[in-house]
Amino acid sequence: MAAPGLRDIPLLPGSPRRLSSRTVARGSQGPKHGQQYLKVPGHRAPGQRDNSSLHPSQVSRRESSRDRSVINNYLDANEPPSSEARLSRMHFHDNQRKVDYVLAYHYRKRGAHLGHGSPGHSLAVISNGETGKERHGGGPGDVELGPLDALEEERREQRDEFEHNLMAAGLELEKDLESKSQGSVFVRIHAPWQVLAREAEFLKIKVPTKKMYEIKAGGSIAKKFSAILQTLSSPLQPRVPEHSNNRMKNLSYPFSREKMYLYNIQEKDTFFDNATRSRIVHEILKRTACSRANNTMGINSLIANNIYEAAYPLHDGEYDSPGDDMNDRKLLYQEWARYGVFYKFQPIDLIRKYFGEKIGLYFAWLGLYTSFLIPSSVIGVIVFLYGCATIEEDIPSKEMCDHQNAFTMCPLCDKSCDYWNLSSACGTARASHLFDNPATVFFSIFMALWATMFLENWKRLQMRLGYFWDLTGIEEEEERSQEHSRPEYETKVREKLLKESGKSAVQKLEANSPEDDEDDEDKLTWKDRFPGYLMNFASILFMIALTFSIVFGVIVYRITTAAALSLNKATRSNVRVTVTATAVIINLVVILILDEIYGAVAKWLTKIEVPKTEQTFEERLILKAFLLKFVNAYSPIFYVAFFKGRFVGRPGSYVYVFDGYRMEECAPGGCLMELCIQLSIIMLGKQLIQNNIFEIGVPKLKKLFRKLKDETEPGESDPDHSKRPEQWDLDHSLEPYTGLTPEYMEMIIQFGFVTLFVASFPLAPVFALLNNVIEVRLDAKKFVTELRRPDAVRTKDIGIWFDILSGIGKFSVIINAFVIAVTSDFIPRLVYQYSYSHNGTLHGFVNHTLSFFNVSQLKEGTQPENSQFDQEVQFCRFKDYREPPWAPNPYEFSKQYWSVLSARLAFVIIFQNLVMFLSVLVDWMIPDIPTDISDQIKKEKSLLVDFFLKEEHEKVKLADEPTQRSQGGGDRSRRSRAASSAPSGRSQPGSIASSGSQHTNV
Amino acid sequence: MAAPGLRDIPLLPGSPRRLSSRTVARGSQGPKHGQQYLKVPGHRAPGQRDNSSLHPSQVSRRESSRDRSVINNYLDANEPPSSEARLSRMHFHDNQRKVDYVLAYHYRKRGAHLGHGSPGHSLAVISNGETGKERHGGGPGDVELGPLDALEEERREQRDEFEHNLMAAGLELEKDLESKSQGSVFVRIHAPWQVLAREAEFLKIKVPTKKMYEIKAGGSIAKKFSAILQTLSSPLQPRVPEHSNNRMKNLSYPFSREKMYLYNIQEKDTFFDNATRSRIVHEILKRTACSRANNTMGINSLIANNIYEAAYPLHDGEYDSPGDDMNDRKLLYQEWARYGVFYKFQPIDLIRKYFGEKIGLYFAWLGLYTSFLIPSSVIGVIVFLYGCATIEEDIPSKEMCDHQNAFTMCPLCDKSCDYWNLSSACGTARASHLFDNPATVFFSIFMALWATMFLENWKRLQMRLGYFWDLTGIEEEEERSQEHSRPEYETKVREKLLKESGKSAVQKLEANSPEDDEDDEDKLTWKDRFPGYLMNFASILFMIALTFSIVFGVIVYRITTAAALSLNKATRSNVRVTVTATAVIINLVVILILDEIYGAVAKWLTKIEVPKTEQTFEERLILKAFLLKFVNAYSPIFYVAFFKGRFVGRPGSYVYVFDGYRMEECAPGGCLMELCIQLSIIMLGKQLIQNNIFEIGVPKLKKLFRKLKDETEPGESDPDHSKRPEQWDLDHSLEPYTGLTPEYMEMIIQFGFVTLFVASFPLAPVFALLNNVIEVRLDAKKFVTELRRPDAVRTKDIGIWFDILSGIGKFSVIINAFVIAVTSDFIPRLVYQYSYSHNGTLHGFVNHTLSFFNVSQLKEGTQPENSQFDQEVQFCRFKDYREPPWAPNPYEFSKQYWSVLSARLAFVIIFQNLVMFLSVLVDWMIPDIPTDISDQIKKEKSLLVDFFLKEEHEKVKLADEPTQRSQGGGDRSRRSRAASSAPSGRSQPGSIASSGSQHTNV
Repeated sequence: MAAPGLRDIPLLPGSPRRLSSRTVARGSQGPKHGQQYLKVPGHRAPGQRDNSSLHPSQVSRRESSRDRSVINNYLDANEPPSSEARLSRMHFHDNQRKVDYVLAYHYRKRGAHLGHGSPGHSLAVISNGETGKERHGGGPGDVELGPLDALEEERREQRDEFEHNLMAAGLELEKDLESKSQGSVFVRIHAPWQVLAREAEFLKIKVPTKKMYEIKAGGSIAKKFSAILQTLSSPLQPRVPEHSNNRMKNLSYPFSREKMYLYNIQEKDTFFDNATRSRIVHEILKRTACSRANNTMGINSLIANNIYEAAYPLHDGEYDSPGDDMNDRKLLYQEWARYGVFYKFQPIDLIRKYFGEKIGLYFAWLGLYTSFLIPSSVIGVIVFLYGCATIEEDIPSKEMCDHQNAFTMCPLCDKSCDYWNLSSACGTARASHLFDNPATVFFSIFMALWATMFLENWKRLQMRLGYFWDLTGIEEEEERSQEHSRPEYETKVREKLLKESGKSAVQKLEANSPEDDEDDEDKLTWKDRFPGYLMNFASILFMIALTFSIVFGVIVYRITTAAALSLNKATRSNVRVTVTATAVIINLVVILILDEIYGAVAKWLTKIEVPKTEQTFEERLILKAFLLKFVNAYSPIFYVAFFKGRFVGRPGSYVYVFDGYRMEECAPGGCLMELCIQLSIIMLGKQLIQNNIFEIGVPKLKKLFRKLKDETEPGESDPDHSKRPEQWDLDHSLEPYTGLTPEYMEMIIQFGFVTLFVASFPLAPVFALLNNVIEVRLDAKKFVTELRRPDAVRTKDIGIWFDILSGIGKFSVIINAFVIAVTSDFIPRLVYQYSYSHNGTLHGFVNHTLSFFNVSQLKEGTQPENSQFDQEVQFCRFKDYREPPWAPNPYEFSKQYWSVLSARLAFVIIFQNLVMFLSVLVDWMIPDIPTDISDQIKKEKSLLVDFFLKEEHEKVKLADEPTQRSQGGGDRSRRSRAASSAPSGRSQPGSIASSGSQHTNV
Repeated sequence: MAAPGLRDIPLLPGSPRRLSSRTVARGSQGPKHGQQYLKVPGHRAPGQRDNSSLHPSQVSRRESSRDRSVINNYLDANEPPSSEARLSRMHFHDNQRKVDYVLAYHYRKRGAHLGHGSPGHSLAVISNGETGKERHGGGPGDVELGPLDALEEERREQRDEFEHNLMAAGLELEKDLESKSQGSVFVRIHAPWQVLAREAEFLKIKVPTKKMYEIKAGGSIAKKFSAILQTLSSPLQPRVPEHSNNRMKNLSYPFSREKMYLYNIQEKDTFFDNATRSRIVHEILKRTACSRANNTMGINSLIANNIYEAAYPLHDGEYDSPGDDMNDRKLLYQEWARYGVFYKFQPIDLIRKYFGEKIGLYFAWLGLYTSFLIPSSVIGVIVFLYGCATIEEDIPSKEMCDHQNAFTMCPLCDKSCDYWNLSSACGTARASHLFDNPATVFFSIFMALWATMFLENWKRLQMRLGYFWDLTGIEEEEERSQEHSRPEYETKVREKLLKESGKSAVQKLEANSPEDDEDDEDKLTWKDRFPGYLMNFASILFMIALTFSIVFGVIVYRITTAAALSLNKATRSNVRVTVTATAVIINLVVILILDEIYGAVAKWLTKIEVPKTEQTFEERLILKAFLLKFVNAYSPIFYVAFFKGRFVGRPGSYVYVFDGYRMEECAPGGCLMELCIQLSIIMLGKQLIQNNIFEIGVPKLKKLFRKLKDETEPGESDPDHSKRPEQWDLDHSLEPYTGLTPEYMEMIIQFGFVTLFVASFPLAPVFALLNNVIEVRLDAKKFVTELRRPDAVRTKDIGIWFDILSGIGKFSVIINAFVIAVTSDFIPRLVYQYSYSHNGTLHGFVNHTLSFFNVSQLKEGTQPENSQFDQEVQFCRFKDYREPPWAPNPYEFSKQYWSVLSARLAFVIIFQNLVMFLSVLVDWMIPDIPTDISDQIKKEKSLLVDFFLKEEHEKVKLADEPTQRSQGGGDRSRRSRAASSAPSGRSQPGSIASSGSQHTNV
């Protein structure tokens, strides 16, 4: 047993002294594993004073300002930390140091027989890395290891080296002893103050300075107005501390150790909040290399090679703990993540504080989108009611339903269908008026502008949040975070280097300049990625073709079933309704299945492309997934809107599909009606099924599955699980956070439904609103209760999603223009009213739109067999603008056709350019940065300069104190003048309530 | 005479001792003016050691690191600085301190009789402010002053106080004694090192650090390609030092006095180049307040109240000095501002170094625009030649010129005009084919994409320049520079306060909270600006109406002269050519005159709006001026393109204007021909006249006028002008720099000509190119030789001009679509070819487009009187799609009309959406930031972190040196580990040629 030397860390004697047999057998040359005292050879960081003789409590409080040393948390041997003494389960065993990050890994002892692991109190705590096994490279005398054990050994060594590097970077680690044969171990990481300070300086984290200043609430009217608004909406405000004082704001400045006096550091431990602390540790984890694992950088690649199983920050505590000790998570749960509070605003600041900016921005966006849906759903309902109210005054539908002017229509299908009377389609005609009336035109112009207004307001909200969350000027940070290339990318580059070096070992020698090695060897050029790109292109084309073919398949299904059903009498009556309904349901099911497939395929495609950084990976994945899901969700709707009933041909020369089936036609009421049914079923179906089943059902199933897995896991069941599990155990059992893409994707597709085809379905916003109100709370519950705490990522905006949103906004203008011009009857009615109608009313419109067809010219074998029509049918009518049979060139497109067509096209041009001009106007009128915020930013800038100067003068004064006192004479005048030479000559603006210089204990 | 006390500055004894009589009479209480020794009461800045006993040469080199004191530039009494000894005329009289800025003012002594000023060597130099007259407030014993003298006295006191504040801010001043009765005095300002350092830190000016790193020229192919390009274009490269080494770049970091060790400061005087020094002084000038002039801030308001006449930085010397001493200005003149070097690239870096970023960006933009015009003019010429080549194969024009199928056309005017044969218009028909052929459609698609490519490439060039000029992250600076509100704005606010305080003195007392004073009193709300806005709106509307009425006036002129000329035989033949030509010339003249008027009106309108800051003033001015000039330049062209010949009516029911004149028709060849003439004359005319006369002629005139004024100016002629005039005298006689708006405006309007109507005039790019090649050198000459040196303003982009450009780009897509669809015959020919022609060729097209008119139905008195036509005319033809007279509804629009119309509208929709989609694609494909630049920026970031860390470690090591040596033992290991714990674990990338840490003499 080596004498307790200068650098030994006494192992905690608390564990019962039954050393497992395995340890004795170990080779003798290295220090025995599981010894009482741990040798820590040479891990003393530079300038670190040996304080092992001090009592732990003294250690952390001792003023260790200058040295960035690794504090050696030696636990007093004779004071066993019983579990009851453990105040909170968020700290190390010494109850002082907060756990900022947890690395979990699964270990399996060598030759560990699968029997029950050796019982024993596993609380033996080894701190600062279990360096007992510090053997570099397998010594000759090693016990022969099986292949699995060799891998385990390799992993253990990589872990050791990685943890060693972490400690070198100044972090403090603590983990339980691997007492059982196998199980998971949690490495707790704590970042001491110097490390936090150093990293905060590098990451330029903005922290509040001493200076508070009052936010002016703008002009007097604006102030009164916001005061009223405040009182009005107070019941809607969540009772969350941050919300109360939004009148005062701290001046914030990137942290820097030289300017420590600027900051108001009462308590070193709580100066940086938990999210920032875990972000700093995460940055270090991402940066620390592990030379043994061929120099891969950072924790992500280690997790990728599953050296570690998971790395996650800790939740702030239980969210449903009975007591009244409030922690952020619990507050979030009560004020936000419950369906009961659906009417309340969201506590965005608290969400950001707890989950970080990226998730904060998502919920802010979702909140704004939902609140913006309110006005549009109100107007949508009004338009719908207008439709209902004016159903009676709609002359064309009345003419249709009027039995006297019985229009005998040509048969809908060959042979089996008979001539039919137009008035039989009276129901659909009246129903189609609900959606096909002038109000829909106004509503689609409104929705196009609504989309622009929404995007504008989001830009402003994003700017306001950016200002209050001190995100201005975080470009550098974003760039730096992009630098870490993905593990897969690095492996691919290494493969390439190996291949290259093998091939061109000779070639390299001749390479003239040494810098060449930097050349394009060490990064993937598009030549390497070419196969990936090709594969991408091909598979995307294939999938789009797949979607189109499925849509075509459904059409064929519709045609064949319609033909089949209309064969026998019984089912003939409501052929159209059954066919359409079943077809739409098939479409819906197909869309849901393909959605999942396309999600997975998009991920796979992006993988083979091997993008360099995490951010490009995410962007490319989103673009691909969006393209596929967009096509998948909307192609059936596009078909009905623009293509259905266009290729029917005319009686006498119908267009045939599959030798015998005529192309399908729209319902007599027009295609808009059908479009509306299709749209509503797909939208509601998608929302109900995708939300309820996928988002709630599947996670619950997974949770159940994990619980089962945990129960049955051998050796896992630790007898002393009886005592309350640690926070990291609880978090470990939660689902890992997998990013926001699915959430955003769902909302964007819904945004498409709400804007693209709103002309045909004005109630879309209402359904979207209902869904979103639940969606907000559903996602909130998921984040607070079911997911591990995500890393607090700082972003200034929602990234590529904004471009997609504005793309959809622009695209919706053209689509709405075409829907109104082509699908709906709005333009033909207008043209008829102003150029063809005798008395300027719509009387005679129906007749005007129906052309004649001389029944005798029907092709052989397509006449209706036993037509029930009483009198002999000579001419049957069909909906088109054709020359009458008696005209010189019969059945050609008539003049009306061309004039209506040019009216439609003219409408599209005017609508598109008008709406685009209006959106540009709206975009230009509403400044991206809210004026009060830009004033505040400017004011903050000038305050910063003054504050900076004042502090500097104080510092200069402090420095000059000794010299000046000896000079005596006019000090005061000098100091006053020094202040006067401050760059901004203007006297200090009165409004700064300088909070007095609380003396910091620097 | 007060004994030469501690703080007196001996007046330079060089001046002959004839004290002007005036000085003696001065009141006795203050120190005598013009005394040998100047008393400088209490201007010693804090901590400033008295160094009056030192020799001047010692003064400036003495180590005065810490005190920001005003160095008292005491000139050795017994060493008279004879003018020959003056090394360069860019320094103070001590030849040490460089003149960074000059304030010029005109003084008039009290009661100075208009006779010849007292001769005498005016080289008596007073330094640090002529504080002889330091009397606060007119003492009781003052001599009674005339009104003019009181104003002069007031101005003198404000000048003194301002200069006093400048000195308090640490600047050093030097000016000549006001020896003559009146004349202009030049206050030279020099910024010592501490002031430069302090301000550089506040303005966060990026300066190169010690670290140089090699710019990787991208992949191997890219490197070879750029090498070839380099050699190829070497004759085109200007021989300017900067251009040579663009392989290495300095890592730059905002200047900070704490991190002085980072920078490579060999020589304190030349560390900051002239432009930066003058910019720093300009910032101080803008910031220094002058309490006496009711606390106005900065030099601009003083100039506005003409306390000072001008404030400008100095040119670097003579540009045409015979010797071979090279200075930047001369280099610029030789390598850039000469017509001889028109084929060479512009030395952008030198331009930026000399004139600052704003002007550098203008010339970079102009250069890119001109080089982008090359490909489009080449293709324009090809399209034009294609037109010429295919003139023979154009079937319709051949049919027109073919005498056999003589189409008798209806008379062009009532009574006097006869029927005429279509073949007589053969010339114009063939000519119109030159511009009206399928190639023009392709060319306008190309030009729409060309505009997007140009804007994309400008964004990239701007980013590249931003990177090489270290402009990344200058947002704060821009915001701060916006803070200074304009003098007019402040006066307006003060008036409002006076008015308010008068009115609401009582009301204010009741105002509850004290902060209210900050309320909307001290800034102009839109309520105050409402009259201004109203005036704006009204006058803009009026002016647009004015332009339209002038265009209409020209139309009436055309109609009346055409009618008048066609009356008598002689002039009838080429009526159309004379009328069009004269009309276009009138248009041109009107446009040029209105251009100037609108420029002035726009300025006046923006003035009454009283915008807050200089930047908003400029933006609003630009928007107004652009709107007016756009309407002015393009309305005649819009008329010809879209409205001419549309309201003619048809024979038998013509549209009459002014009771008797028929609306004018396009030439038989179609309107495109006429549009092309109109466009070419206006564009060339505008360019030739505006460029040559206005830009060259007028400045020359002004220069002449100034010279004359100088000659005749009494008292100005200084006998000793014989000796070489100082640099500030020369600069003073140059034109002041009035901003870039007129230059940009001219180019933007030309950009409009090149993109908007290119479909009708493919040669526009060629003429634009020729004009711009001259324009670049013309502007260069103006800036180098005719203008005072502008302030070096830092901007990252060309501001609102980019938005206007992209606006024109988008607008040109729609206009081109309409020009092709409506003005040109392209669509009718297409429709005829594919749906009406029997054999798919254009044969019979002319006949197809001419409708018949039964002559008998001509209105009474409009038949041609004595028609020469041999056989009796029954039907005459006219160009329109009408039902024939024998049809059921004669002369109504025929089916062809509607089908051609819908074809035209369809083309517009397809063209617009296709081109927009392609531009978005181009925009998306070309990344805004060139990839090699974004790599460099990332690399620079990581290098900065490493460099920052390495230097810090060195600093820490220096600081720890004493402590560590005592500890002995493993220092080296600690230092190596210290380096290893640098955040980026990766070893230093090989490629940084660290230039070795030259020891700075900190």
